[in-house]
Amino acid sequence: MRENTTRPTVLPVAPTRGRLRPLGLDEVRITGGFWARRRHTNATATLGHCRDWMERVGWTGNFRAVAEGRIDRDRRGREFADSEMYKLLEAMAWEAGSGGSGGSGSTLDADAAALTEIVARAQQPDGYLNTAFGHPGQQPRYSDLEWGHELYCYGHLIQAGVAQARARGEGELAKIARRAADHVCATFGPGGIEGVCGHPEIETALVELARLTGEQRYLDQAALFVDRRGHHTLADIEFGRAYFQDDMPVRDATVLRGHAVRALYLAAGAVDVAVETGDDALLAAVVRQWEAAVARRTHLTGGMGSHHRDEAFGDDFVLPPDRAYSETCAGVASVMLSWRLLLATGEPRFADLAERTLFNVVATSPSDDGRAFFYANTLHRRTRGAVPATDTDSPRAESSLRAPWFAVSCCPTNVARTLAQLPAYVATVDDHGVQLHQYADAEIATSLADGHGVALRVRSDYPSGGTVAVRIVRSPDRPWTLSLRVPEWTAGATASLTEPDGTRRVVPPGTADVTRVFRPGDEVRLELPVTPRWVRADPRVDAVRGTVAVQRGPLVYCAESVDLPDGRDVDTVQVDPSVEPEDAGDKVVVAGEVAAHAEQSDEPWPYEPLDRPAVSTADRTQIVLVPYHSWANRGPSTMRVWLPTTRQRTTEP
Amino acid sequence: MRENTTRPTVLPVAPTRGRLRPLGLDEVRITGGFWARRRHTNATATLGHCRDWMERVGWTGNFRAVAEGRIDRDRRGREFADSEMYKLLEAMAWEAGSGGSGGSGSTLDADAAALTEIVARAQQPDGYLNTAFGHPGQQPRYSDLEWGHELYCYGHLIQAGVAQARARGEGELAKIARRAADHVCATFGPGGIEGVCGHPEIETALVELARLTGEQRYLDQAALFVDRRGHHTLADIEFGRAYFQDDMPVRDATVLRGHAVRALYLAAGAVDVAVETGDDALLAAVVRQWEAAVARRTHLTGGMGSHHRDEAFGDDFVLPPDRAYSETCAGVASVMLSWRLLLATGEPRFADLAERTLFNVVATSPSDDGRAFFYANTLHRRTRGAVPATDTDSPRAESSLRAPWFAVSCCPTNVARTLAQLPAYVATVDDHGVQLHQYADAEIATSLADGHGVALRVRSDYPSGGTVAVRIVRSPDRPWTLSLRVPEWTAGATASLTEPDGTRRVVPPGTADVTRVFRPGDEVRLELPVTPRWVRADPRVDAVRGTVAVQRGPLVYCAESVDLPDGRDVDTVQVDPSVEPEDAGDKVVVAGEVAAHAEQSDEPWPYEPLDRPAVSTADRTQIVLVPYHSWANRGPSTMRVWLPTTRQRTTEP
Repeated sequence: MRENTTRPTVLPVAPTRGRLRPLGLDEVRITGGFWARRRHTNATATLGHCRDWMERVGWTGNFRAVAEGRIDRDRRGREFADSEMYKLLEAMAWEAGSGGSGGSGSTLDADAAALTEIVARAQQPDGYLNTAFGHPGQQPRYSDLEWGHELYCYGHLIQAGVAQARARGEGELAKIARRAADHVCATFGPGGIEGVCGHPEIETALVELARLTGEQRYLDQAALFVDRRGHHTLADIEFGRAYFQDDMPVRDATVLRGHAVRALYLAAGAVDVAVETGDDALLAAVVRQWEAAVARRTHLTGGMGSHHRDEAFGDDFVLPPDRAYSETCAGVASVMLSWRLLLATGEPRFADLAERTLFNVVATSPSDDGRAFFYANTLHRRTRGAVPATDTDSPRAESSLRAPWFAVSCCPTNVARTLAQLPAYVATVDDHGVQLHQYADAEIATSLADGHGVALRVRSDYPSGGTVAVRIVRSPDRPWTLSLRVPEWTAGATASLTEPDGTRRVVPPGTADVTRVFRPGDEVRLELPVTPRWVRADPRVDAVRGTVAVQRGPLVYCAESVDLPDGRDVDTVQVDPSVEPEDAGDKVVVAGEVAAHAEQSDEPWPYEPLDRPAVSTADRTQIVLVPYHSWANRGPSTMRVWLPTTRQRTTEP
Repeated sequence: MRENTTRPTVLPVAPTRGRLRPLGLDEVRITGGFWARRRHTNATATLGHCRDWMERVGWTGNFRAVAEGRIDRDRRGREFADSEMYKLLEAMAWEAGSGGSGGSGSTLDADAAALTEIVARAQQPDGYLNTAFGHPGQQPRYSDLEWGHELYCYGHLIQAGVAQARARGEGELAKIARRAADHVCATFGPGGIEGVCGHPEIETALVELARLTGEQRYLDQAALFVDRRGHHTLADIEFGRAYFQDDMPVRDATVLRGHAVRALYLAAGAVDVAVETGDDALLAAVVRQWEAAVARRTHLTGGMGSHHRDEAFGDDFVLPPDRAYSETCAGVASVMLSWRLLLATGEPRFADLAERTLFNVVATSPSDDGRAFFYANTLHRRTRGAVPATDTDSPRAESSLRAPWFAVSCCPTNVARTLAQLPAYVATVDDHGVQLHQYADAEIATSLADGHGVALRVRSDYPSGGTVAVRIVRSPDRPWTLSLRVPEWTAGATASLTEPDGTRRVVPPGTADVTRVFRPGDEVRLELPVTPRWVRADPRVDAVRGTVAVQRGPLVYCAESVDLPDGRDVDTVQVDPSVEPEDAGDKVVVAGEVAAHAEQSDEPWPYEPLDRPAVSTADRTQIVLVPYHSWANRGPSTMRVWLPTTRQRTTEP
């Protein structure tokens, strides 16, 4: 690994070492296209939406109630409600620090300052800060590490403080965060409480604070928390200790398991600790867990976590589309983990998964207007459900439509902070040059390892189109390498790269390098094959046997009932994979059959002897598919990603 | 409907009207075969196991603690723990009343009397009886109708009291139950608390008490509880009001929904109310709900409830084998409902489902030794899990092995009371004669509607064999009708019936009648085709597309890893449904392939373009299947009911 020199950039994640050096939000701007639209909506709608809902449901008021000594009577929301305030403040900081995507930086700063003031007044003299514990009439501090989420809330507070310091210079929020972190070190450090939090998050936050401040003790405390986990300091709850990864030490585990968000946050924190301490064995352990989870426990969308009951990873290959949990926050956490592994190793597979997850999980959660969210992201919706009330919070989104807020409302602010920091995922630098990982209309201006300035302008309508044109705006007068990720989904198709001199070559999945003395005006063009393609699953994914899906570039597609004739539901659809899917704008058209309603009438018992002949009178037709992330924006509907094939209609099983 | 005359028989369910009249445990004895063995184990092992565990985990002690005024400090177990005591007492009563299957009736009576004395001392002067509420230091009575289970516990207390009165003559337990029922009527009757219990059960119990005592007010109270439900007297919990069927009135619902046990207990109570009040519309509503649930929400085993998170029915056709919840208690409740519908309507389809559920859910739960139980009954187990400790209770059975006791331990006592009353499900009488519904070695002695005595002796090794021989032991000297159920699973195969005069005829699924003047020694023989057969599912059961299952008679079969070569797991198996399965004793042998371990190695990503060729080097072999109910009695194993077909190995999706 190489050392990263400290630079005053707006870095969401700033490892001091690693294969790649990240760029700050002041070095990369997303200027148009898919993600620019999402970021604009995030800045102009979602941030305010979250702020208003937190005020309305009383979670902001919890901080005031602590300051005014009446929290025992007035506290609202679940035990982790404080964290939504911190995630919103983090999102506001990154948004302000990236120059704003439509929101005004000064308005954001004013909003953040007002909220910060409310938070500040709730902090205790010794640094303790939580509205659910430790005040008169409440349970004592740290009396419920399994479920209390106190350290989890600090984690998000610290991440917000770091974001504010990096984006706007160290202010009040960063000071609150440091006081809280000092309190944590004093309370849970050597000689203190021998415990960990039921919900990991503090680990990655403390490492980031150590990176910001250079203070070793924050890193030591993070390492201590990582090492302590798996030694049964937490109680054996109904879901088992694997739920919060306390069943075995992090470095002994071979696969991600238990509650998906917890597992992924912990893994991200373990990577941070491993990178900062040079603990290659720990890093290798997390890579191994990531590999096993991706190979066996991940939906086609990148979604992780198949169990509703405990929001957990299931057994290998248990990936039923109609019970996909695929929590939005697990998608966010997966991107966090993949990004850290990419920085540490430079391997494009981590950017591949991040891309898949961003387009098909993170982008799926918010509605077009940025004011409603999917908590879970099923791959098959069988009933249309009802339109959720827009003026009330939802228990959890199991409707076919997004909801404006939840009793457990972790996803809106998590999506917000992810979109706010998204430009940082676009590119990195290393000793050889610049690497592009995610494709979008973007402007990049940074310096190479030797300090020479370099600037690029990326033009692409990705993922609608597959052309990525990288124009050199500024370059030193010496050779360097521009590296472009060739996504894994191009396997079996043909991607090509054209150098500034017109040389064109086929590039396999992985990384395509162009090394030369670049001149301003030079252009490197990557052509990615974004024609739609049929995809099948490993036969061990039992739940999708006999079905196929369509992917187009990084986008997973789905059938949605609003595109079917006569108000039919998606379960009338069967597709013919012997006919290639065809582009139709951003939609895709496939050949298949739609069964008449009459054929869907019930038999009294849904099982029958195999030798009984089956009949079909379904009509051959064309079926329109839409990007999965766009579904459920046109009213209640049914939807499915994995589509049965027409061959399944026959008497053959 | 016809009126049932009151007779002093040991009847678990004693409707005053209905198409069929049930027989008591003193009129039917199961003398050998599958169910006799199960009942013997139940009487000699399970009843004592439950009694000992309840003492050990302190649930019996809760009653003592109430009597001694120390319950606030000493209460153990969940809020509904009292109900296990009552279900055990009910099981003991039916077992004692059926002459004992191996346990001594007098020992059972002594055990029951001792437990009854403990319960009696905990009852309050006004009839209130619950160890979790209403005592100093506890929450007030009826302060948590959503989750408190107070009325649910009364329901089981009343059922135990009725059982004792019917089996042994009205004694102390029946008196406790009547005092509790009077308290319920006074508290929740007109002018009282306008509420229902979060967990239905009291409804069916109060109707049975009305049948026992002839007191109208118990029936009125049951009808009131049924009618009150669905009007939002319960809070809107996280799972939604459908969880406890409070989302809409019982008579408006079109399908069973929400928590499966609650839904089925409520439906059973609604049938009881409908029968006793002549409310044909209510009965029709429940039949409609049953039909929809059976057609769309029931596993091949008869198992109901696919959701782990809230133990609930899912959407139509959401029946993933590897996330089958199929709770044991839902199986018990389904049998309760089907039995009541059979008595009310006389339609054999209800006995068909009861048979399927008894053999494949209720019989699956207990281990061979009757001292460990499945809480949930999955249809696909992918990992071998660990051997659960025999000296501790299990959170819930998600292991591959049965557990001796659970934190929520509803299934052991529910299985016990079902097996104890099982002989009552065998036969009924009506104005025309005798009906046989379930087949077992049995002796039946009862009277026809006109009062004439009739006695039958049934010989069968069902379900191993398909021959059911019914010998007339006693008969009036006038014609009457012997009706034999021809199970639905014989459809497409040939069942035949031989009359005493040697006449043989093919009989279709439904009911086969023989009407004649029977003489002692006459024999009617039913030959059922119990050769194993391939079964497929409706294509809308997405999770089992491309797979087949084997059924043999009423038994569902499964592949279990302990029968595979080289310690392979069941997910290496693919079967060839073009070859008919073959009998091998109680096992079944099918043709297929078992993949080598090497073929199971991971790709880094489990999805791939459809056009990539697939290869197979699996060896053609014979695969042994065992009855599903018998699985997991040979150590940790993997198991699956639905088996992929070899056709799925090819490049075809």
